[in-house]
Amino acid sequence: MREVAIIGIGDTKFGELWEYSLREIGIKAGLEALEDAGISSRSIDALFVGNMSAGRLISQEHVGSLIADYIGLSKDLIPSTRVEAAEASGALALITAYFSIASGIYDLVVVGGAEKMTDVSEEEATRIKCSGIDQEWEGEIGATDIALSAIMARRHMRDYGTTREQMARVAVKNHAHGSKNPKAHFKNTVTIEDVLKAPKVADPLTVLECAPISDGGAALVLCPADIAKRFTDSPVRIAGFGHASDTIALGARRDICTMDATVRAVKRAYHMAKTIPTDINVAELHDTTSIFEIIQMEDLLLVEKGSGGKVVEEGMTYFDGKIPMNTSGGLKARGYPPGATGVAQVVELVRQIRGEADGRQVPNAKRGLALNIGGSGSTAIVTILEAM
Amino acid sequence: MREVAIIGIGDTKFGELWEYSLREIGIKAGLEALEDAGISSRSIDALFVGNMSAGRLISQEHVGSLIADYIGLSKDLIPSTRVEAAEASGALALITAYFSIASGIYDLVVVGGAEKMTDVSEEEATRIKCSGIDQEWEGEIGATDIALSAIMARRHMRDYGTTREQMARVAVKNHAHGSKNPKAHFKNTVTIEDVLKAPKVADPLTVLECAPISDGGAALVLCPADIAKRFTDSPVRIAGFGHASDTIALGARRDICTMDATVRAVKRAYHMAKTIPTDINVAELHDTTSIFEIIQMEDLLLVEKGSGGKVVEEGMTYFDGKIPMNTSGGLKARGYPPGATGVAQVVELVRQIRGEADGRQVPNAKRGLALNIGGSGSTAIVTILEAM
Repeated sequence: MREVAIIGIGDTKFGELWEYSLREIGIKAGLEALEDAGISSRSIDALFVGNMSAGRLISQEHVGSLIADYIGLSKDLIPSTRVEAAEASGALALITAYFSIASGIYDLVVVGGAEKMTDVSEEEATRIKCSGIDQEWEGEIGATDIALSAIMARRHMRDYGTTREQMARVAVKNHAHGSKNPKAHFKNTVTIEDVLKAPKVADPLTVLECAPISDGGAALVLCPADIAKRFTDSPVRIAGFGHASDTIALGARRDICTMDATVRAVKRAYHMAKTIPTDINVAELHDTTSIFEIIQMEDLLLVEKGSGGKVVEEGMTYFDGKIPMNTSGGLKARGYPPGATGVAQVVELVRQIRGEADGRQVPNAKRGLALNIGGSGSTAIVTILEAM
Repeated sequence: MREVAIIGIGDTKFGELWEYSLREIGIKAGLEALEDAGISSRSIDALFVGNMSAGRLISQEHVGSLIADYIGLSKDLIPSTRVEAAEASGALALITAYFSIASGIYDLVVVGGAEKMTDVSEEEATRIKCSGIDQEWEGEIGATDIALSAIMARRHMRDYGTTREQMARVAVKNHAHGSKNPKAHFKNTVTIEDVLKAPKVADPLTVLECAPISDGGAALVLCPADIAKRFTDSPVRIAGFGHASDTIALGARRDICTMDATVRAVKRAYHMAKTIPTDINVAELHDTTSIFEIIQMEDLLLVEKGSGGKVVEEGMTYFDGKIPMNTSGGLKARGYPPGATGVAQVVELVRQIRGEADGRQVPNAKRGLALNIGGSGSTAIVTILEAM
């Protein structure tokens, strides 16, 4: 099997991008990645696009083809594939592209993630954001992704003594990181008091603990690792990955304080990367809500089960802490266009490993881990990156 | 690179399946394929699902995860991937699964294609079916997939002298084949007169030349070719495939009587399979409309450019003719659930190669070709199968 490396990255600002359509978001991110890799679109063998719900958001399916066309790939009839696993669509595009190179079929591949959320009302965007949970058994009875998250939070508080202040600190830290990321949706900082006093979305979670509705795109250029240095002095190797799927409905799971899919996915990723949790220098987690970040750092074996709240409280997850997490600002502050998220996480890790994360640079970041989640934990995809 | 073989097939009846939801359609097809391969869901490494628009049709994204769950794969946290390229989603799932096995990451993989169209009104289903064409430049001004097809038909009639009778014969032949397929949506036969006198959908095309709105699912079990005989005496090798993407808007193309993406995809597939057009014993084409089948047999190099109408007129494309096409009944009679189509085409070819296509069996079918199209030809995926 051929190993795979990342040789180019690109991303748009995240936020309410009224001035751009989905195809324009795709173009901006894709062309930036091609430029970063120093290659033209004519050299590309294939495009893989992660997108959650363009069908409902802009009445357009077939967005793989659409973005390939507008990026200039259709001139050469270059094949395009769209993949979807709700909010994990971005990471899914990455590992699907990985398969295509590892198999020997393609060499130079672009991976893009994009979502245009703000062409519909906020109410409709929220409804669509919830289409990653089980519609027949959860959506129908009024559950939202945030409501399910709130149930998980209550249980984590009961089982492990996690406090509201600890959860609020996740958002405080992510906003602090976002304030240092020029492409973040939110650049304001917030205090614990701000978070706790903000309007509730689903008790106990307040709006400042929930990731926003954002537009945005991100892109990567991949190639076989053995030729990566032809294109760049600082390629980043995809050392390992893992993908697992749990029941789509939260209530059918063994334990709602652990995402079993994450545990399975990260074990596979560590095994494939021949690495252990303490080797990870920086991680991007999937903080749809504050409690997600706490549960996930535990599931990823970065901290002990039940200790996530305390680790956050001790400030260890800041970019200059012992286990830096979501240096991009995370979903909360960097922003949350579902299909773009998994790709944007990897863009941030590449920046960290290259030493290009001005103002939020983790010292000596050589190895990074990203966790991209679909639904309430039904899909988990972990990717481990390494400096070459 | 590891070669890949098909060791199990399954499909539901196509039609208006009021009694089944999408997840039930997925279960039926998937379990049938597992049973055919003689394995349990616990041995599976991954699932790949092709689906066009569950987000709009049943308000559910994340259907990869949903179907994995209901097929029983979530017990073992088996990863699931949904891919989409409009009506070519099924074949896209097949080649994505191919990558995953060829790369050495997975061994036993299930590929499923499914669509539930009849939970919305016919008008809404038609609108959704059109979301594979360019919404900003085609959909917005009222174009439908059939209207674009009608433009292609007019041009083909002008440039190559193709007649209305020749086009109607495509539907007559496909209904004749459908009448011999117990799982077909339509089992009635029709005459040329019936077709020409039927209500027009978009001049010159009548309703009897346009594929219907159907529900249905189909599934395959894949494994590395070198271990395929452990599971079955009659594995079928995926000898080659090709995937290409053209502009999403028809008007931006070089020639509307040729789908350049098909020409590119089939050249790759022939090259990979080390085969030539005359080696093909049976083909499943993507007859969204009658003219599509004529244009495609030309683009696939199965007949000379411009001669498609004449070939049909001479009866050569019947199951007992010289170049049998759409022995399943094709999209027109077998039915047209978009996400299932590409997988169902391959199921039919496997039946032919195994010699199990009762009543419509092509004598000595050793090598088959399937063409799955997305939009008005923006995505083309060709697969070539061979007896082992």
